[in-house]
Amino acid sequence: MKTTNFFDTPTSYNDIKASLFSSIEKETSSIGYYALPDQDISEIIDFVDGFDDSIENIAVLGIGGSSLGAKAIYEFLKPAKELGRKLFFFESTDPINIAEILKQLDIDKTHFLIISKSGNTVETISIFKYIFAPSPDKKHYTFVTDKGSNLDKFADQLGSKTFYLPDNVGGRFSVLSVVGLLPLALCGVDIRALLEGAKEVKTSFFGEGHLYDSLLEKSVYYAKNHIQYNNNCIFAYSDTLKYFTEWYVQLWGESLGKEQRNSAFNVGVTPIGLIGPKDQHSFLQLIMEGTRDKSVTFIKVNNFEHEMYIPPVTLPFLESLDILNNVPFHELINMQCDSVIESLKDKNDIPLDEIVIDQINEESIGGLMYYYELLTSLVGELIDVNTYDQPGVEAGKIILKEKLNARDNNLF
Amino acid sequence: MKTTNFFDTPTSYNDIKASLFSSIEKETSSIGYYALPDQDISEIIDFVDGFDDSIENIAVLGIGGSSLGAKAIYEFLKPAKELGRKLFFFESTDPINIAEILKQLDIDKTHFLIISKSGNTVETISIFKYIFAPSPDKKHYTFVTDKGSNLDKFADQLGSKTFYLPDNVGGRFSVLSVVGLLPLALCGVDIRALLEGAKEVKTSFFGEGHLYDSLLEKSVYYAKNHIQYNNNCIFAYSDTLKYFTEWYVQLWGESLGKEQRNSAFNVGVTPIGLIGPKDQHSFLQLIMEGTRDKSVTFIKVNNFEHEMYIPPVTLPFLESLDILNNVPFHELINMQCDSVIESLKDKNDIPLDEIVIDQINEESIGGLMYYYELLTSLVGELIDVNTYDQPGVEAGKIILKEKLNARDNNLF
Repeated sequence: MKTTNFFDTPTSYNDIKASLFSSIEKETSSIGYYALPDQDISEIIDFVDGFDDSIENIAVLGIGGSSLGAKAIYEFLKPAKELGRKLFFFESTDPINIAEILKQLDIDKTHFLIISKSGNTVETISIFKYIFAPSPDKKHYTFVTDKGSNLDKFADQLGSKTFYLPDNVGGRFSVLSVVGLLPLALCGVDIRALLEGAKEVKTSFFGEGHLYDSLLEKSVYYAKNHIQYNNNCIFAYSDTLKYFTEWYVQLWGESLGKEQRNSAFNVGVTPIGLIGPKDQHSFLQLIMEGTRDKSVTFIKVNNFEHEMYIPPVTLPFLESLDILNNVPFHELINMQCDSVIESLKDKNDIPLDEIVIDQINEESIGGLMYYYELLTSLVGELIDVNTYDQPGVEAGKIILKEKLNARDNNLF
Repeated sequence: MKTTNFFDTPTSYNDIKASLFSSIEKETSSIGYYALPDQDISEIIDFVDGFDDSIENIAVLGIGGSSLGAKAIYEFLKPAKELGRKLFFFESTDPINIAEILKQLDIDKTHFLIISKSGNTVETISIFKYIFAPSPDKKHYTFVTDKGSNLDKFADQLGSKTFYLPDNVGGRFSVLSVVGLLPLALCGVDIRALLEGAKEVKTSFFGEGHLYDSLLEKSVYYAKNHIQYNNNCIFAYSDTLKYFTEWYVQLWGESLGKEQRNSAFNVGVTPIGLIGPKDQHSFLQLIMEGTRDKSVTFIKVNNFEHEMYIPPVTLPFLESLDILNNVPFHELINMQCDSVIESLKDKNDIPLDEIVIDQINEESIGGLMYYYELLTSLVGELIDVNTYDQPGVEAGKIILKEKLNARDNNLF
């Protein structure tokens, strides 16, 4: 991974950088996600090695932090690699969506992973009931939850296998735990390489390598300017990164959108996921000429490993586009990214940076996700929020339970 | 369609409303999209009626305004309706994406629609060259472009059928023109019903029916507060509306992100598309506790026409979730939406409104899109921008051409 910040951080921020680094280093003893690159994965590997060969589909019942990370990695690798089993996600209570996915699944060739940290997620348990009622055989199900949750107790009574989340790893930071690793490993993803990629980023940052300055400067810049630049865009130049941007939206939005610890002011930087070149024809105009409230990070793939050339045909009346002839698509897409960066640099008041990942493989995405987790922790520390909770989503859940209780009473 | 604004517009805005309405009424004589619900579609219907029955796939080569609208409608209807042919979209220069779509297509059973208003879109022509070089038979292709464009001249020489965009309809306002109607009609979408839905909205607004006040009040509120509330979220409670939100992002972002006509200040309101309940587990925390810079529009489907109940099974240790038993999923998802709205209303400083569409059909989506086009025109008029151009995207295109020219010269 190569990173370049196209904005200046004043040198007077060296003091902040040192104290910020030391706060984050301290956090590694209490927050669990930092340790994930070094975890023991033998329980997962053994489970996958002994897994039923006749199973062709893995279906995750999970929502938010229980699905977005695995989905991001699976959708990133799928078009470029030959993976084994297919991976499906039930993450909505929309009946049309549930029916649409079920239509594609032969239940006898499908294994269901029920993933819920708390163990009582309404969406996940609703869909589980729907699938479990006609197919109550324990062999179809494996559970991932916190040790001791009600779902853990249920799975124990059912006699199904249960995996536990490690301590102090929140849902949105759990992609490199069993939550992400189990479904991915079952589908043939090289989870050792995923962790290897994350470990490289971890070592570079904590070992004060090239990511040390880059990450600290970027987080200081974002935090210092978060009132003006209250939106942060990822503009990724590959369709394979579409679900990565959705994972980033949860990570960033849910971690940083908070009341400040000391002031109780509402703060946050809004995450926006964009895919190039498509969104050059959609969102770019707004970045270029709209309100100066957006920072933009471009993500490029260095090597697509896909030799596909625009053929040297001349189309009558369209000769001006012969400049495209013989250009490989992978070169064109990166030239498009560079052209947009240059055009935005000319404006001088839009904070830009660039991340180049090496290729479409496990190391790259593992590293990229760990990079974003570190960045989120750093910015959260600086804007003085609790990066790891999400108290704002509880009120809606309580109202829903009241509504369900009221309905229940009316009907029975 | 039923709309409810949960914010107050001061009565002193009655004068603004009248003058705004009259500006927009005047615009209908120069801007073409307003007239689309009343257009003559016989040329499209005749073409579809005489179309080759052996063709199973329609592939659109187009990007931005040439693809987002048809994609939004197709993906909205597909899971709920039995459509005929399958619709594919080539809208990226990512080689992995192009190869992935081509893998699914038998060229002899596929018809390609090359859609480019200007006729020289780099992405579209690049992909067209790639497909055309090995398959140059004119029978595979139909073109949609501006009359007299170089692509029109090329198609004429090739001997393929060409459809023309109507006058003064910009790409992002073109979904209800041949740009959207042709691919959709070829796939079995009832385009008469689409236009009927749009016409109902048009009549209600211009005939001073129930949408007159609702749309004017909403646009006045958004424009008046666009400095504070510089983000506008659509929170749609159905997975079928996912691509509708992508269409909205282009419509809103590219229309409103501009230098103001008089002051040349950079203005705009950032569009954000969210899907419930999934994004309750992602973005909701940021709305609830983050910076007060977001207005939110909830979209609900009144009738999913999908009878699917949560079965009345009691899971040991999870008895507290028996409140879900016998609840239809379509009722649960709308209760989830209502619960989130109530929890946000309690905050008192987040502008909310709600749109309820009747069901998953052509009328609903045609009406919803026309509603958003009107809202965009109204807000654009009030924040003093040219809603219909996109000058900010040109600089990047020029730099790309320079890079391509430089490359060319180096190689040959």
